[in-house]
Amino acid sequence: MKGLLIIIASPSGGGKGSVIKHIIGGSTKYSVSATTRKPRPGEIDGKHYFFVTREEFEKMIAAGEMLEYAEYLGNYYGTPKSPVEKWLDEGDDIILEIEIQGAAQVKEKMPECVSIFLLPPSMEILEKRLTGRGTETPEVIKGRIEVAKVEIEEARRFDYIVVNDRLEDAVTDVKAIITAEKLKYRRNEEIIERVLKDA
Amino acid sequence: MKGLLIIIASPSGGGKGSVIKHIIGGSTKYSVSATTRKPRPGEIDGKHYFFVTREEFEKMIAAGEMLEYAEYLGNYYGTPKSPVEKWLDEGDDIILEIEIQGAAQVKEKMPECVSIFLLPPSMEILEKRLTGRGTETPEVIKGRIEVAKVEIEEARRFDYIVVNDRLEDAVTDVKAIITAEKLKYRRNEEIIERVLKDA
Repeated sequence: MKGLLIIIASPSGGGKGSVIKHIIGGSTKYSVSATTRKPRPGEIDGKHYFFVTREEFEKMIAAGEMLEYAEYLGNYYGTPKSPVEKWLDEGDDIILEIEIQGAAQVKEKMPECVSIFLLPPSMEILEKRLTGRGTETPEVIKGRIEVAKVEIEEARRFDYIVVNDRLEDAVTDVKAIITAEKLKYRRNEEIIERVLKDA
Repeated sequence: MKGLLIIIASPSGGGKGSVIKHIIGGSTKYSVSATTRKPRPGEIDGKHYFFVTREEFEKMIAAGEMLEYAEYLGNYYGTPKSPVEKWLDEGDDIILEIEIQGAAQVKEKMPECVSIFLLPPSMEILEKRLTGRGTETPEVIKGRIEVAKVEIEEARRFDYIVVNDRLEDAVTDVKAIITAEKLKYRRNEEIIERVLKDA
């Protein structure tokens, strides 16, 4: 059976990284994004992101090699298409950790994907999380909060809403969504055929 | 939030009773069906079914008191409407254990319901389960197998397919479906409003 393409998006600071770390493993693969932003301390090229130059990124867009991409606070973020298609065909599930703008592009190109919006429990908690990260200036944080408000309005385009309050609950919820999506009728027609055939 | 209406259907012998026993509890309520068939040993009136006469059942149909009903091997089975509506309004989730014919009627009257088809892993196992029950004659079992084949063809009208091989896996699957359905965007609009309002 073809794998499931799962989009997990949240405003910056919404905690998608921590949730995804607990979801991936086995046949659930993480699609590494490409970005033109500078690596944060500890981030590894090819694991957290493919860190590329603006020129390289724009060349990939022009060649149609991006499943989605977005410009966010002056940097490009995007998903290289070919590894995703290859894994799905091999039956692996793929987690896409993407920005809100990118999610709509993927939904359009691959409507069978499942989109999950991680919602912070409150704007206050979102701000605390962004501040606690300690990697951004107060001005950048203020900008991200404003962007987050606009992004949360976009949550209505998503299939599922998971409130990311306690991490373990959010992980359980995302796992339940993946399990349930695989049980949908349209993914199981062949099982019915098989049961009837041996009658 | 309004409760979730969950239809669980399977061919006779498909194991819906055992699965449902592990799902109900807390705010997940079981909708007791009415039937005109004779109680099996150990079955309690008002717990397993409301055992009523044919005359009483037909009076309820005429009064519009049935959410769905079906005639199956000479007996009526049906779901009284008013307790279901009351519980849903109070926020409880309701499990409807119904026959395949009845599921389509409920879906038509309450399209927001979630329908799950429990599929036996094979027709051979289904036959073994029906025989093992020891409550039916071989002729009745043969009839049920023939009916089951027709019913399995109807699985395509359902939202989800759960193969009932190991009971604990089927229970986990059904629980995941219920969790995921509650996370769907359309059930969570008010949470998004709340997060944005305190911004």
